[in-house]
Parts: sequence; C-alpha cells; structure tokens
Amino acid sequence: MAKPKKTPRPKAETPKGFRDYFGSEVTHRAEMLSKIAAVYHRYGFDALESSGVETVEALGKFLPDVDRPNEGVFAWQEDADSGKPGDWLALRYDLTAPLARVYAQHQNDLPKPYRRYAMGPVWRNEKPGPGRFRQFYQCDADTVGAPSVAADAEICAMLADCLEEVGIDRGDYVVRVNNRKVLNGVMEVAGLAGDDKEAERGIVLRAIDKLDRLGPDGVRALLGEGRKDESGDFTKGAGLTESQRNIVMGFVSANDTAKSQLERLSSSVDKTSASKLRVAAYDNSTHVFPYWRSAETSKIWNKQVLSVLQDIAGGSLIGAQGVAELETISDLLDAQGYDATRIIIDPSVVRGLGYYTGPVYEAELTFDIQDEKGRTRNFGSVAGGGRYDDLVKRFTGQEVPATGVSIGVDRLLAALDAKGRLDKTADGPVVVTVMDKARMADYQTMVAELRQAGIRAEVYLGNPKNFGNQLKYADKRGSPVAVIEGGDEHEKGVVQIKDLILGAKLAENASLEEWKDRPSQYEVPRDQLIAKVREILDLHS
Amino acid sequence: MAKPKKTPRPKAETPKGFRDYFGSEVTHRAEMLSKIAAVYHRYGFDALESSGVETVEALGKFLPDVDRPNEGVFAWQEDADSGKPGDWLALRYDLTAPLARVYAQHQNDLPKPYRRYAMGPVWRNEKPGPGRFRQFYQCDADTVGAPSVAADAEICAMLADCLEEVGIDRGDYVVRVNNRKVLNGVMEVAGLAGDDKEAERGIVLRAIDKLDRLGPDGVRALLGEGRKDESGDFTKGAGLTESQRNIVMGFVSANDTAKSQLERLSSSVDKTSASKLRVAAYDNSTHVFPYWRSAETSKIWNKQVLSVLQDIAGGSLIGAQGVAELETISDLLDAQGYDATRIIIDPSVVRGLGYYTGPVYEAELTFDIQDEKGRTRNFGSVAGGGRYDDLVKRFTGQEVPATGVSIGVDRLLAALDAKGRLDKTADGPVVVTVMDKARMADYQTMVAELRQAGIRAEVYLGNPKNFGNQLKYADKRGSPVAVIEGGDEHEKGVVQIKDLILGAKLAENASLEEWKDRPSQYEVPRDQLIAKVREILDLHS
Repeated sequence: MAKPKKTPRPKAETPKGFRDYFGSEVTHRAEMLSKIAAVYHRYGFDALESSGVETVEALGKFLPDVDRPNEGVFAWQEDADSGKPGDWLALRYDLTAPLARVYAQHQNDLPKPYRRYAMGPVWRNEKPGPGRFRQFYQCDADTVGAPSVAADAEICAMLADCLEEVGIDRGDYVVRVNNRKVLNGVMEVAGLAGDDKEAERGIVLRAIDKLDRLGPDGVRALLGEGRKDESGDFTKGAGLTESQRNIVMGFVSANDTAKSQLERLSSSVDKTSASKLRVAAYDNSTHVFPYWRSAETSKIWNKQVLSVLQDIAGGSLIGAQGVAELETISDLLDAQGYDATRIIIDPSVVRGLGYYTGPVYEAELTFDIQDEKGRTRNFGSVAGGGRYDDLVKRFTGQEVPATGVSIGVDRLLAALDAKGRLDKTADGPVVVTVMDKARMADYQTMVAELRQAGIRAEVYLGNPKNFGNQLKYADKRGSPVAVIEGGDEHEKGVVQIKDLILGAKLAENASLEEWKDRPSQYEVPRDQLIAKVREILDLHS
Repeated sequence: MAKPKKTPRPKAETPKGFRDYFGSEVTHRAEMLSKIAAVYHRYGFDALESSGVETVEALGKFLPDVDRPNEGVFAWQEDADSGKPGDWLALRYDLTAPLARVYAQHQNDLPKPYRRYAMGPVWRNEKPGPGRFRQFYQCDADTVGAPSVAADAEICAMLADCLEEVGIDRGDYVVRVNNRKVLNGVMEVAGLAGDDKEAERGIVLRAIDKLDRLGPDGVRALLGEGRKDESGDFTKGAGLTESQRNIVMGFVSANDTAKSQLERLSSSVDKTSASKLRVAAYDNSTHVFPYWRSAETSKIWNKQVLSVLQDIAGGSLIGAQGVAELETISDLLDAQGYDATRIIIDPSVVRGLGYYTGPVYEAELTFDIQDEKGRTRNFGSVAGGGRYDDLVKRFTGQEVPATGVSIGVDRLLAALDAKGRLDKTADGPVVVTVMDKARMADYQTMVAELRQAGIRAEVYLGNPKNFGNQLKYADKRGSPVAVIEGGDEHEKGVVQIKDLILGAKLAENASLEEWKDRPSQYEVPRDQLIAKVREILDLHS
C-alpha cells in the first residue's frame, strides 16, 4: 500500500505586496488619523464608513489614474443564487467611488451640501514594488453638492490645518492650487478644444505633468513631434504647431514669467519694496517651488501669477472663469488668514486624475530628506484633491458638484518620522519578574496595583526558571523598570526596583565610581512600590 | 441601423449583507475601540495590524465555528505570473488566524510571550440576515507562548476592565469561566475518550451548548436516542447508556447541585450566614446565570462549584487538572480584587469553537433589554475566548500555547445604546448663514475665528437664495447655533446669533409670554461673536 501523502505545511507569509504593522507603527497612524479626524470634524465634516466590499457595477470599471490603465481591483463573483448568476464584488480602490455610491443611495436622507470624511484601507491589484503596497490607508474629506469655490477654499484651509495639527511646522509645507478650467482655457486658445482633439489634449496634459522631470525643452519636444529618451525610446508627441506650442509653453512657464515681472518691478522701486519682493530661488533640483516667504508679499505673488494666467487663458471664456475662481479662492483664504506662505496659486499643479473639472490642489512638504540612495531630495507631495462633477452622475443622471482631498497617511507618517516628530520614547511595560512560581498571585497583585495607577505593567508569563531570560524579555519589550521580589525580599516586606533605562546608560558609559554613586536598583518597602516606579518613570519622561 | 444600446445606469446599492455607517455610528465605535486599546495597552499588549487579505493557504480552509461548516470566506485567484498559476487569496474571517500566521512568520523578532491586540474589520461569506452583516469589527487580545493559566486569568481581568472602561457598570456584567479539560475529564469518566468516539463527543458538546434553549430534558434526550423537535424533525442523539448520560447530566447540572448544597448549608447555620449565602434566583427564561451578588460570598460560590466539578470529573487525570487550573484562576483573580461578582467559575460555558483546549471564558451583560418583538430579554454575550494550542502548529509543527479574547464591538455598542450610555448630545456645527453671496469672505472669516476657538463651525455652502433652506439645513445637521449677518447688521457692526436648541424647545412648549421673556435670538457686536456662541454652547452642554 502506498504511504498516505503528507499535506505540506502552509507557508507563513503575507500575500505578495501586503505587510504587517507592529506596535508604534499602528499607534502612530491611529493617533495621526484621530488628529486629522478632529480637524475634519471641527470644519463640520461628518464621519462615513462604508464597507471594504462594493459591487463592481457600483465601483465602475475605471480607476482614477488615467496614466495607469492596467491598474486593477481585487474582484470575485458571488455564488449563484437560485439559478441567477452571482454579482461581481470587489475591494474598494479608493474612498471617492464609494462616496458617489453612498450619496446616490442615501441622497434623500443626507444634508445638502454633504460634508463627509472617511478613513480606512483601500486595495489596488497592481504589481507590488519596494515601498509600494497593495493595501494602504486613505484619509479623505469631500463636500458634495456645493458648487461654490468657497468649498474648495475651505478644503485647502482645512488641509493646511491638518498638516499643522499632526506636527508639520508652518513653513515646512505649502498647499498649491490650480484650476483645470485655466488649463482648458489654454487648450481652447491653442485651438485644442473639441471632442476630436481628446488624444492631443491627453498628450499635452501628460507632457505638462512631466515638467519637473524633463524640463521645458523636454516638454516642448513632447508638444511637437515627440521625444527620444536616454535609452533611445521614442515617445510620440502631440504634433502641435509652433504657435500652439508657444501658447502651451507660456502656460508652463507662467511661474517664471510672474517671477521676472516681479523682479523687473522690484528693481524699479525703492530698496525696501525691492527686498520685500525678493522671490525665493527656483531650485529645480529639489523640486521646490518658488513662493513668497513673507505674509506681506505673498498676496502680491498670487496677484502677479493670476495676471499672467489672465494674459494667456483670458481670451477663452472658460479660461477667464478659471482665473476668476482662483482669484476668489485666493481672496477667501486671505480673509481667513491663510496667506500664500501656506496656500499659493501655482499653475504647475496638474494632477493626473482625468475626472477633475475645476480647482485642483496639492500639499507639498518643502523640507529635504535623504532618499534611499543617500541623495538629498525634497519630500514632495503628501495630499491632493480637487473638484469633480461627474461621479454621482453615473448613478442618477444628475450632475452633482463635489470637491475633496485625500491625505496620504503613510507618506505623512514617513515625513514626520524623517523630521523626528514621532514620539519614540520607550513605551514598554513595567515587568514584574517571577522569582517563585508559587507566589504568582502576589506578583499579579503588584501588577494590578500598577495598572490601577494607570501604569503600563505586566507579570512575566514565560517559563520563569531562567531569570536571565526574564531580563532579556524586559529588554526586548523596551521596559523602563523591572520589579523583583524573591523569598528574602518577601520576608523583609520589600521589593527591588530596577531602573532599566539608567542601567543601560550606565552599562554603556559609566566608570566604576559612577556605578557606585548612581545605583540603578533600589530596595523599597512593598507599600512604596507604586510611588517609586512612578518616580523613575517621571525621571525618564 | 439599430440604435446603439444604452448602458443602463449602475445601481447605487451596497452588496447584499453590507452596510454604511454614518456620523456618530462611526465615532462612537472609534471612541470605544480607542478606550479598549488603552486598557489592552495598559496590560502590556502591543498593537498589531495585519492586512485584510491573506493567502487561503495561510488562513486554512476551516472556519472556527464547527456548528456552521458551510460558512465561507470571500476568495479569489491571483492572475497567473510567468505561466505559474496565481495564489488563492481571501479576506480574513477573524483576527486569530492572521495572528497565527504572523507569529509563525516573525517568531524570531517577537518577544516571548507575545501579547498582542488587534482591531479591525473581518469578512464572512455567509447568508446575510436581519442585523447580521458580512463585514463586522473584531477587537482581540491574545497572549502567545504563555503556558500558565495566569495568562488566562489576566485576560479575564482585562475583559472586565474593558467593559467598565467603555461604560458598563459593575454588576451589569459577568465574565464566566470554564475549562475544556473539565469537560474532557467528564468525557473520560463517561467512557467517551478515544479517537473512535469523536462523533459522539461532538453530539454531546452541541447538546450541552443547547441547555439554555432545550432545558435538561431536551439535552438528556440528545444524549440518548435523539429528540423530535416541535416541527416533528428528528435529531439523532449520541446513543449513550443510562449511566453515561447520568455522568454528563451531572456536569450539566453542576450549578444547580452547587446551589442546593449551599442552600442546605445555609439553613443549617445561623441567620446572618444564611442571608449571606442566599443565591440569586436562577432565571431560566432570561438566561441569567446565578451568581453571588456580594463580594464576601462570591468566593464561597466558586469553591462550591469547584468541589462539585471535582466530584464529577476528578476521577480523570485531565479532569482533575482542569479543576485545579480553574482553582488557580479563581485564586489569582481574587488576589487582584476581581471577585466572583465580576468573574465567576461557571461550568455551563462551552463555547462552540472546536479548537479550544483549556480555559474558556465569556462576558455576558446581565441587564434586560427589549428585543425586536418587544419581549424582555437578557442582553447576553458580548465577548468570549479561551486557550488554543494548535493554531501555530499548522505552520511550524511546534505546539505553541495561546489564549485570547475577542470583544464583539457592535453588540457592545448596541448594549451601550440600549442603556442610554452613548453621548447623543447635539454635535452639529455652528452654521454661519449667507445673506449676501458677495460677502462670502466675511462669513468665512467668522467661521475661521470660530474654528480657531475650537468650535465646530461652517459656512452654508449650498445655494443661499432661499434663507429658509439654510435654516432647514442647520436643523438637519443638528446645529446648536446659527449666525446671521445681513446688510443692516454689517453696517451696524453687529451679528444675530440664534440659539437653535432653545428655539426648538420654545417652539414646542412656550406660551407667548415665555417667548417674549426668553428670546432665542441675540444681537451682539461683531467682536463678541465667539464669546456669545460659546456662552450658548456652554448653556446646552
């Protein structure tokens, strides 16, 4: 008889592209989400939590990012029910598509406008890469049913408040605002409007979005016949005429134009104004965008950029409307005390998503970090959003105006970590060691007293035979204090309290004299256990 | 030419068995989870967050509940990669199976024992029913690698602390503890040990679990030939002999035996002791279990129950060990101040999960609620758990002891709601109305000031033409205050502040005199806006 085949043991592995989060990775994120939720709430937004699973029909087959059409969702078909084939279900890929479904489903019960925030995991069925995961958090706030750009301005202000609330200093971030209508106006002026020009507009949009990487010459090449990259691969261009290209490039270089106009202006006025008007250097290598560093001059900057945009796109109705909207946004924000050192009009913001129809905005952190290859880089974008009017229409046929932002929680956490803003103080529990297994009840009593005093504490629950293992365990947990009560101590009514943080420091640096002068272990009466532990914890906090 | 077919509009619906949560439904749960996390943390447990998606291989094909073998998971197959068929992935159905995978995968890096907590959604592919959803929250804490029952005792104490922390009063809950080893001992004594008796043991276990519903006679029938239910359907029994049935029934009625022993005892001692020993009535209709209501006598109760169990199961080695473990748990909890008014030894706790190997525990809320048919019912179980030693073994071949609890967050929220313990005070934003669209910047400034003062506030962002709609909106949001500044007010430098809560009360009850005496609208200078709003909010808080 053949031997029965052994079932091989299952592999203990996350699926490819997924990961586990431990301890402070979880709690730091939870704290950040809770701070952001508090800001969203203060702005009048209500919480919404939809489930991770939607019908494929409700989600729509499209994914938001037109640049990556192969990006997919995780989907499966329900079992057939009484002969009827089952629905296709899928994990949500963002929090906006579910919002559209919720709004269409519950519109009679929801207030209008509907301000809602949502936070939670989303899933993308894409090829995992380093630092790129198939499940990640999103943290969104959207206003549905408000046509006024006051709604967009409010979200930009809220975004700035969120960044400051979680620990990004003023000056370390900037929210950059543009308007798709200005871009559409530029297209119209350049003769690229109309349904038959959609392909060209797509190429132009993607070319503009690559300005940072390719520079003005690269963009100009893509607007024309095309461009050969370093590897020799050829990307076909939009095939614009020379004058069309000039119009688009005028838009692309709007910031530079505004800058030189202001520089000319500043050299023709008195010295004080000149110094006020100095523009921060445009540092192409670190992707920092020039903006006015002082509240006094930031208004001048916004006005100048808007005047350049008016010159380029004002000839088209939609373009002029776009510029006027940006002006309103700038004025509203100014009235609330959000000047252009925090929120700036910036025509270079394009944002990849095809569905935006009006203002678009993006939050960038402006400080430098070291990348994985040790190069100094600007940290870059941590949040973005804009106005979109078509999402709900899929369900109801009615166009419902909406605008909203999504904060990239994981990138923001990485930024705070890079800035040393995450609380890394040892948060390990006080460990009560077990010297005599038979006296477990006594040790549990100590721990209960510590916990009731609000102190994180635990009894060692492994095999207590080897005392060294207990101290190794305390070390691994990052414990600040170990409590020891052997037979002798019990008889004398005392406990030994070991300051493990001081102990570790002494072990590293101290001379023999210092060891003697600063003992890291104390014998105290049993009834002073809590007081002594608290004294040590306070010392290190 | 045929007309092109129109794509029908997608249905705006959640998939069957899923739902959306709005506003306070979300925030109440978040607050509860955060309070429970704080208790878990104080007990030394570390956070763990694994992803919602696991390989089917790592999850295992079994689901924990043996009574519902048709229960399934949501699963799908990955796309093939370079000719290799894709892995099967699935949504996690609980937080324990992922813990086993994490522990096996990261065991070299984790402290031992490993105390971890996890909270998040899980998914079950089962037939949805009323109040039964296919995505729900779990909130678990487990200790892996601690063989001592001190770990079980600790989790029972922590469970009691969690319930009190979220707002369940002492006396409104009881944590009931049993031990599977006692049950195994009973099986052994009854001659039901051995691999060939697995089917019988299964029937016996399920029969005991149905005591509440079927009563002792029904259970006895299922232990014998079987039982015909009201509909006439016949359930085959375990086919035990009369003496086997007596042994099992002795276990089933252990609580009653302990009770009558104590009653006999109390009638033979003096009056004071007798009153101390009075046992709460066993109320079968509401599933309330008898337990000692006073701290003084609760210890006596536990001891009596343990003595009954020793009589029944002590003849088997495993049974005696189980009773000894329960005794240790009772002593450890007593030493920490958790007497049997909070945590009680109760042999009627079986718990359906097949994988438990030692102590099992369950938290029950003991107060009455009205069920959906208006009947008074005991609220019942909100949390449960126990010791399981086999989960990690699947991956590593090594048996790793583990014990843990899962709190049913949604049931606990429903309980707090039923007790009126959820904060339902109006939490709507102050609404600044728009009287003049051109002065949006002024209104935004007011709102910015309110927010900076920590007051939840917003400008009305819908179409401002119809002022009535603005007040209707404020009403729908549950706004406590509306701010009004028209042209006249603006000229005079004042604002109107409407107390909407008082206004609503007056509209309901007040006489004309009261209306005049207690106006609900105030005119104050613009610079007193914040102070007046805060005054009104304080009045209603």
